[in-house]
Amino acid sequence: MAEIPQDTAPTAGWMDGREHVLPVRIYYEDTDFTGVVYHGNYLRYFERGRSDFLRLVGVGHSALLEKSAAFTVVKISLEFRKPARIDDALLVRTTIDSTRGPRLTFHQTIWRAGEPICSAHVEAACIDMNGRPRKPAPELIAALAPLID
Amino acid sequence: MAEIPQDTAPTAGWMDGREHVLPVRIYYEDTDFTGVVYHGNYLRYFERGRSDFLRLVGVGHSALLEKSAAFTVVKISLEFRKPARIDDALLVRTTIDSTRGPRLTFHQTIWRAGEPICSAHVEAACIDMNGRPRKPAPELIAALAPLID
Amino acid sequence: MAEIPQDTAPTAGWMDGREHVLPVRIYYEDTDFTGVVYHGNYLRYFERGRSDFLRLVGVGHSALLEKSAAFTVVKISLEFRKPARIDDALLVRTTIDSTRGPRLTFHQTIWRAGEPICSAHVEAACIDMNGRPRKPAPELIAALAPLID
Amino acid sequence: MAEIPQDTAPTAGWMDGREHVLPVRIYYEDTDFTGVVYHGNYLRYFERGRSDFLRLVGVGHSALLEKSAAFTVVKISLEFRKPARIDDALLVRTTIDSTRGPRLTFHQTIWRAGEPICSAHVEAACIDMNGRPRKPAPELIAALAPLID
Repeated sequence: MAEIPQDTAPTAGWMDGREHVLPVRIYYEDTDFTGVVYHGNYLRYFERGRSDFLRLVGVGHSALLEKSAAFTVVKISLEFRKPARIDDALLVRTTIDSTRGPRLTFHQTIWRAGEPICSAHVEAACIDMNGRPRKPAPELIAALAPLID
Repeated sequence: MAEIPQDTAPTAGWMDGREHVLPVRIYYEDTDFTGVVYHGNYLRYFERGRSDFLRLVGVGHSALLEKSAAFTVVKISLEFRKPARIDDALLVRTTIDSTRGPRLTFHQTIWRAGEPICSAHVEAACIDMNGRPRKPAPELIAALAPLID
Repeated sequence: MAEIPQDTAPTAGWMDGREHVLPVRIYYEDTDFTGVVYHGNYLRYFERGRSDFLRLVGVGHSALLEKSAAFTVVKISLEFRKPARIDDALLVRTTIDSTRGPRLTFHQTIWRAGEPICSAHVEAACIDMNGRPRKPAPELIAALAPLID
Repeated sequence: MAEIPQDTAPTAGWMDGREHVLPVRIYYEDTDFTGVVYHGNYLRYFERGRSDFLRLVGVGHSALLEKSAAFTVVKISLEFRKPARIDDALLVRTTIDSTRGPRLTFHQTIWRAGEPICSAHVEAACIDMNGRPRKPAPELIAALAPLID
């Protein structure tokens, strides 16, 4: 995407110490008839956070694909504290807890106006194109090492 | 999926003359904060209708993939008449209008309790794995010919 | 939806002893670029299972809404074992573990061809239209009591 | 959301003359098994563009809701030229064509690296909480008048 001037590109968030921060807006598509965000959609915001964290560290999904690798989620536990609503401006905060073999574990929290409203523990695995676990590239492990919380 | 007993498989709908009919239920995930179905989700129901129409005719997506082919949507026009709501039981009715080269055109309508609530004209194209247009397999064309409305 | 003949309505699944079973088909909309189902979408299938379980027991969401009540998810833990793929015919199996005050807990598993591919523990709460927890209607509690596993 | 410092809020895009521009990133959730963006998801990006256009003009959805009004889509026609892919940085460009009674019409285009890849004509209507058409607030009409293309 080198052709797009930097200042018009979508943000990939930023690092706040060892924590990645990504702003997310709530639109029509995110809500359900109870007036708040559909619970399943929080997984999308957490995934955007992890993707942009890895992007900032230098590993986009298309770069991974060129090496015939991708990430898959193995386990997630989610806790919903307060509902998000239409027009809300949220922050997705992501830290990496550990890397071991093909596995990466993350802790993630969604904030609204200084208050955490949803949190997640996520275990992901690097896989090859046949779905078999494989160690992530050494460059990725090296880039993540100083960020482990 | 031969291992699943026929009577527990999800329905792929049925033919009503030249028209394919697929029942669709509205769940939480389909609605938005205005209390009705999110407009973008009707494209999902229309796509389910087209997929199950082709499945009944004998062409599942995994069968297409084995021949390195897939369908892509080129143009759609949609008209929204009445909103669908949580728990609604809808019928997606699909007819095929024409096949020409790589292109298939469909006319589709979503009904609730005997009343049409949304309609679509869809132009799809058969593509190879590099995204280039290609003619669908002769068997598919032959299977569709008697169903053209 | 009384105007729709019973045999054309979407299935709400069935009870297999104390377990609710719902068939689910995988369409284009469910998959992602890695070729398998997007992990966040399993939450949609689990929610469809819980909704149709409650529907069979006699409590649709629109019935709940008339009493100014809805269900909200408080906690979920998910384990992903095998990926689902396009065209797959899945079964969502749902049992209710307990009801206590405003809370219902469920255990759910998604099966493909006799093999479990994803499981979830879900804690939901009944809320009023202001988002405050409230006990579900006594009729619902009474209907669920014999089904607790 | 006044409590969130301005510089950490998600962008609502900007005006480029009479045209609103919103950057959009493509994530896992946006793609399907054919390797590109699911066609139905473009409706979500177009809706984000219209929402942020109206937000910049001063009319958020929550502000509308306080006046018991919302927008609903009446007609859309879409043309898909090139597929978007994982990690893509897109721009959604939105112009307003006309306002007449309860109706607003928009022309929208999605760009990638200087090339239009998808376009839409959208007819929306302002409705009250019972789904009946109503004229938008005079302030909104006045704010939009100089932007009509």
